[in-house]
Amino acid sequence: MLSAALRDGTAARRCVFELFARRLPAGRRYGVVAGTGRLLDALARFRFDDDDLRALRGDIDPATIDFLRDFRFTGDIDGYPEGELYFPDSPVLAVRGSFAECVLLETLALSIYNHDSAIASAAARMVSAAGGRTLIEMGSRRTHERSAVAAARAAYLAGFAATSNLEAGRSFGVPTTGTSAHAFTMLYAGPDGPNEPAAFAAQVAALGTDTTLLVDTYDVSTGIANAVAAGGPRLGAIRIDSGDLGVLARQAREQLDALGATGTRIVLSGDLDEYSIAALRAEPVDGYGVGTSVVTGSGSPAAGMVYKLVEVDGLPVTKRSSNKVSHGGAKRAVRLARESGTVTEELLYPAGAPPRVDGPARELMTPLVRDGVVVADPDLAAARRRVADALLTLPWEGLKLSHGEPAIATRIIAPGHNEESWPTHR
Amino acid sequence: MLSAALRDGTAARRCVFELFARRLPAGRRYGVVAGTGRLLDALARFRFDDDDLRALRGDIDPATIDFLRDFRFTGDIDGYPEGELYFPDSPVLAVRGSFAECVLLETLALSIYNHDSAIASAAARMVSAAGGRTLIEMGSRRTHERSAVAAARAAYLAGFAATSNLEAGRSFGVPTTGTSAHAFTMLYAGPDGPNEPAAFAAQVAALGTDTTLLVDTYDVSTGIANAVAAGGPRLGAIRIDSGDLGVLARQAREQLDALGATGTRIVLSGDLDEYSIAALRAEPVDGYGVGTSVVTGSGSPAAGMVYKLVEVDGLPVTKRSSNKVSHGGAKRAVRLARESGTVTEELLYPAGAPPRVDGPARELMTPLVRDGVVVADPDLAAARRRVADALLTLPWEGLKLSHGEPAIATRIIAPGHNEESWPTHR
Repeated sequence: MLSAALRDGTAARRCVFELFARRLPAGRRYGVVAGTGRLLDALARFRFDDDDLRALRGDIDPATIDFLRDFRFTGDIDGYPEGELYFPDSPVLAVRGSFAECVLLETLALSIYNHDSAIASAAARMVSAAGGRTLIEMGSRRTHERSAVAAARAAYLAGFAATSNLEAGRSFGVPTTGTSAHAFTMLYAGPDGPNEPAAFAAQVAALGTDTTLLVDTYDVSTGIANAVAAGGPRLGAIRIDSGDLGVLARQAREQLDALGATGTRIVLSGDLDEYSIAALRAEPVDGYGVGTSVVTGSGSPAAGMVYKLVEVDGLPVTKRSSNKVSHGGAKRAVRLARESGTVTEELLYPAGAPPRVDGPARELMTPLVRDGVVVADPDLAAARRRVADALLTLPWEGLKLSHGEPAIATRIIAPGHNEESWPTHR
Repeated sequence: MLSAALRDGTAARRCVFELFARRLPAGRRYGVVAGTGRLLDALARFRFDDDDLRALRGDIDPATIDFLRDFRFTGDIDGYPEGELYFPDSPVLAVRGSFAECVLLETLALSIYNHDSAIASAAARMVSAAGGRTLIEMGSRRTHERSAVAAARAAYLAGFAATSNLEAGRSFGVPTTGTSAHAFTMLYAGPDGPNEPAAFAAQVAALGTDTTLLVDTYDVSTGIANAVAAGGPRLGAIRIDSGDLGVLARQAREQLDALGATGTRIVLSGDLDEYSIAALRAEPVDGYGVGTSVVTGSGSPAAGMVYKLVEVDGLPVTKRSSNKVSHGGAKRAVRLARESGTVTEELLYPAGAPPRVDGPARELMTPLVRDGVVVADPDLAAARRRVADALLTLPWEGLKLSHGEPAIATRIIAPGHNEESWPTHR
């Protein structure tokens, strides 16, 4: 595309591309925008060096190679702030510039947003389901080794407390924590069989009593007794990773209390997802370790976002193929709410033609890049607060875990139809 | 774990860890081992430099930092060759060394195998479903930007013909190809509306007539007429990305033939997976572009592999928690077959105690690393042939796309029970 468009000059046409999801993953009621910080960071490094150009030489003509040698993005990007919620058709990102520079960003932007938003969207549901209890992301080993780092960031953004991925601590400042594995306890087995007390003693000797001992390698109630014997009544936490977690949590709480370890926390893990976390609401649990489900988006590993050309040289363009109607023209978005703050509708309107709205409304798109320079502060802590705040504005059914419709409807005002509007798309 | 075990000396105990899947993803009948080449490559680079150690200083005690400074893996690894099939409990990898060095590899090995095997396993089903037609991996934008490169490799290993990910071409020698997007056609729209002929003419001018023109931006039959007008009857291919693909493919074939473009291929894309590919078997299709479903493992984005300690200082160790019985002791594996070559059973036996078997049988584990040195040739082309060959050995029901049991059962001979065996685990 780039090669052909450079050849005849159309590559210079001024374009607007928008990044959005046509729909939410099956039954989901909202999505969480994530990836903004990573995209802005990647944008600064998105260059083609001599090695890159040499590798491309077989695939791409010399004029395109020359273009890539000098490439840097010089356009503008607006977008929803990271951590904001999104709904079907929300223009999460709008990229303006020459066709050449906008089209080069397509795969980078989509990869980052599709991955990070899928994980943040799943993680936010788990955070809701946990009802204030601590969630630890422990899924590094269930996803690609580099995705794992981004996944830890996205989960933290959505409200997880910490990750076991130390690189996410280094790269993004995500708090890190960890527990031991069954292998550690089994390591202390000898010719006479298992020796859980020795393993627990070793862990306490190395990490102190404010550690988490994994008690289900052999027998949970013996494990709890061994744990309190090793760590004393001020032992930090125990972890149970298998069995009927609700029953075991109740029994563990009773046993810990009877042993005087009333402050020792109970952490559960083992193929947890938002549904099993919700099912444990009534049990005496202090925290959850979540692996596979969060790093793979709990059934929806890609957010389904697309990157579509909506405007060329100031004129709206649209595709007309079946089932995939795009809404041409650069758009902006405003989220309407009741006086109580509960949101009611996502209203998309042609950029430059803001509609009259009654009641509280919030503009959603903010400047991220101007003339190729990042102008937004990709602050992960702020994004994390934004998710928490935004979830409070959803109508109550928006937080239901069951499959359903998006929490609010999206209405799209077509270009030149400022009074009239397209049918509500829900 | 490492810190505690270094402190009391148990970190030096000789251990065997095995990497395996307790079960296949829901309803799958086989898995494809992928990631071996990437793991062996990563192993050589798995060191901790001064920056790494500085970053870890807050989390880890000085003795452990010192250990990591000098770390390199010095043990042995055996495993199924890349591209081999696996079934529940197949010991895909066996890692032998000190506890310290083996436990450090856990997340690296699992991340690579869980990701790459999930994708290769899904991709192999698509290759079967395509019945010899060309498959192109086009999913980079639907997964993390680095996963995308590994995903392209895994899909190629499983029989895909090519990828649109140029970095996978550079890193792994995967053949690369691509088509244009709707944005390219829409770019040529002007004040008078769409101008598909101009877009097609530009693409043909840049890439010649052996290119693939995307014909469904506006109207498919007009698009095909425009495509043949631009590329002539020797146009390479057309691509259709939306609508009722089966109907459109038939109409397209008739129209192309009527225009004299009898050699112009028809490529379909648009949320294809193994099921929709199979449903198109009867239609005149030449190739498929597959995105989201292949890079996300078609519903199973992680292969569910675990990394478990099975032996310490020569003695088998096992966990005894509910529902997660592990089979202690280092194992080896042999795949039994009929004289026809059709496989019948996966037999796991204690290392060093090969069972008597009747009929054709193939040892599955091969040396990958000895004393820390890679001894296997991670040859992607060989792995690709291995997948194709192995699929031919499955009983016919093993290639069914419908949910079912593993194609063959796994039988595990427990240590010290060379005559007797554990119940068949299927």
